[in-house]
Amino acid sequence: MKAIAVEPGAGVPEIVDLPVPDPAPGEALVRICRVGVDGTDYEVIEGSHGGVPDGDDRLVLGHEAVGVVEDANGTALEEGQYVVPTVRRPPAGTETNEYFERGEPDMAPEGEYVERGIVGEHGFMAEYITSPAEDLVPISDDLAEWGFLVEPISITEKAIEHARAARSAFDWQPESALVLGNGSLGLLTAAMFTTTPDYERVYCLGRRDRPDPSIDILERLGVTYIDSRETSVPEIPDAYEPMDVVYEATGYPKHPFEAVDALAPNGVAAVLGVPDDMHFEIDGGKLHRELVLHNKALVGSVNSNRGHFESAIDTLAALPDWVLEEIVTGVYGLDAVERAFPRATAAVPAGHGAATGADDDTTIKTAVEFDGI
Amino acid sequence: MKAIAVEPGAGVPEIVDLPVPDPAPGEALVRICRVGVDGTDYEVIEGSHGGVPDGDDRLVLGHEAVGVVEDANGTALEEGQYVVPTVRRPPAGTETNEYFERGEPDMAPEGEYVERGIVGEHGFMAEYITSPAEDLVPISDDLAEWGFLVEPISITEKAIEHARAARSAFDWQPESALVLGNGSLGLLTAAMFTTTPDYERVYCLGRRDRPDPSIDILERLGVTYIDSRETSVPEIPDAYEPMDVVYEATGYPKHPFEAVDALAPNGVAAVLGVPDDMHFEIDGGKLHRELVLHNKALVGSVNSNRGHFESAIDTLAALPDWVLEEIVTGVYGLDAVERAFPRATAAVPAGHGAATGADDDTTIKTAVEFDGI
Repeated sequence: MKAIAVEPGAGVPEIVDLPVPDPAPGEALVRICRVGVDGTDYEVIEGSHGGVPDGDDRLVLGHEAVGVVEDANGTALEEGQYVVPTVRRPPAGTETNEYFERGEPDMAPEGEYVERGIVGEHGFMAEYITSPAEDLVPISDDLAEWGFLVEPISITEKAIEHARAARSAFDWQPESALVLGNGSLGLLTAAMFTTTPDYERVYCLGRRDRPDPSIDILERLGVTYIDSRETSVPEIPDAYEPMDVVYEATGYPKHPFEAVDALAPNGVAAVLGVPDDMHFEIDGGKLHRELVLHNKALVGSVNSNRGHFESAIDTLAALPDWVLEEIVTGVYGLDAVERAFPRATAAVPAGHGAATGADDDTTIKTAVEFDGI
Repeated sequence: MKAIAVEPGAGVPEIVDLPVPDPAPGEALVRICRVGVDGTDYEVIEGSHGGVPDGDDRLVLGHEAVGVVEDANGTALEEGQYVVPTVRRPPAGTETNEYFERGEPDMAPEGEYVERGIVGEHGFMAEYITSPAEDLVPISDDLAEWGFLVEPISITEKAIEHARAARSAFDWQPESALVLGNGSLGLLTAAMFTTTPDYERVYCLGRRDRPDPSIDILERLGVTYIDSRETSVPEIPDAYEPMDVVYEATGYPKHPFEAVDALAPNGVAAVLGVPDDMHFEIDGGKLHRELVLHNKALVGSVNSNRGHFESAIDTLAALPDWVLEEIVTGVYGLDAVERAFPRATAAVPAGHGAATGADDDTTIKTAVEFDGI
């Protein structure tokens, strides 16, 4: 079968031939339909994040997938059922650990997990994959074409669940939300904020010039676009309003700290980026005082668990079709796979893939299609 | 009646004569027994925090009080009942606002409250005070002698409630807790951590040499004392262990950021200090990455509400008497009031009162006694 693999740091993925995998007991065989491409994939391609399985020199890419059960292999799944695989698995050579046992692999610390397509285990960019049945989340036929968006949406489901939990000790009624970053995750999150009744006013920070398709999407959603070159994050409360929620999806290391200034009293910032080291000066006294005197919170969040995937499927069903059609700017077969990775070149600069978004002005989110829906 | 007031910035409090106040409808008249002194009082004395009521040039000090109902004035309180007053009230000239209406004045932003003895309304260091009956929390006769500790304990009750809430979206089983600061609030908090079943191992960071009474208390409690001059906060995970909870009670602006490094995966830091501005360099990229990849949280917390006072009374009842006797190093009548304020001098240096603790090596916590228990 064909798969898309990368030698980390090589700068470009390549199509390889691999045997169709055999499902072990408890696993199903899944025929992959579509797999999304995101900033983490570019970090793996560039070699700044992730790693190959022990003993391999290449990693099969892909962690945002939707496929169809080809062989249920005696599990409770039904053949022909569309499914979305979760990403984390127990480390090689182990069956499980406490985090997986309680259904919270997203809370496992380093060393207690591998991530398919990212670190330590092959991903989903292949014609067929196998997976434990409990890590395959069913999705209805009518949503399957967008099923590769379930994983990124689940990342936001978890982050927002944790952020809301951090405000659950009092009567919190958020009205305003600010998304930092207008890449595909930022856009999906802004769209989520507009389709729940929780937030009356939604803002999204980017640094792109009009006309721009991401700004068009935001404005059609009723989201206020803020150009970071005109208004810095700490200036946002005066220029717009203080924010009850800030959601950071830029990977820019100053943003978590600047977010404290952007928050309204009793607000919470969810931070999601995974940047490289960066030294800079802060007024730590002012930040400290702001956190305390206004009961503010900063919550880091990574990965997601099956419950978040299930919520994400409900969220996906509630998003307007036009949003999905506008965010997904291209779905490419293996014959045009290079178009699914427009930023991948052998000379790609290292680092900060997640922060910069697509290099050209029209690509927002791409996917590779292995088989039609 | 006698009261202890200060002209902010004067550097020393003074005894003044004031009329006994008349309770308004809904208010009770309380005869004050004891009022604790803490770092915030010194900040008010120095003029770095707080402020006088409109139209006054002096502020009656004191926000950690216990007294006895002298005149219930038709409220549901009983005369002779010991009570502890809460601290926040609606701003002058207002009856209430949404935060007070829902019992959460601790979540009110600046401008939506005054604080008795701190900012905008006279405090409790007087022979008599009046207070709305709903802001007077009954305490049993046998605990009344320590009732001035209810307010500081309530500060920790709230901070820990908010910190735990921030971890309520997953199955969190903390075992280790680190208190930053061995002043009276740090010691009370360390004692609280040792008397709840939540934490198996408790640590407290200070910068004092043995022999020292605060270190003696910590060691008798089974708390591990960490000298910050030997082990910095980021070094604590290697030297001791990563911490599930960090509680910052130093007011040192580097501590909230260093706490991120001290935390175990999925840990939470509660920050409580109110420092002045302080600029310094951080590796913001590393901090950002640590917050995200290990699902860490930072939660600021200020003040407390009636529910936290009620919890604090239960907590006080559970603390061993010897801890209270060792922490409270002196209770002084008006004839020796200068001994209750050992750090107050006309030439006291500005700022950082809360961070430095008592100047001499034997004073931990003092109180002023207006009337015997």
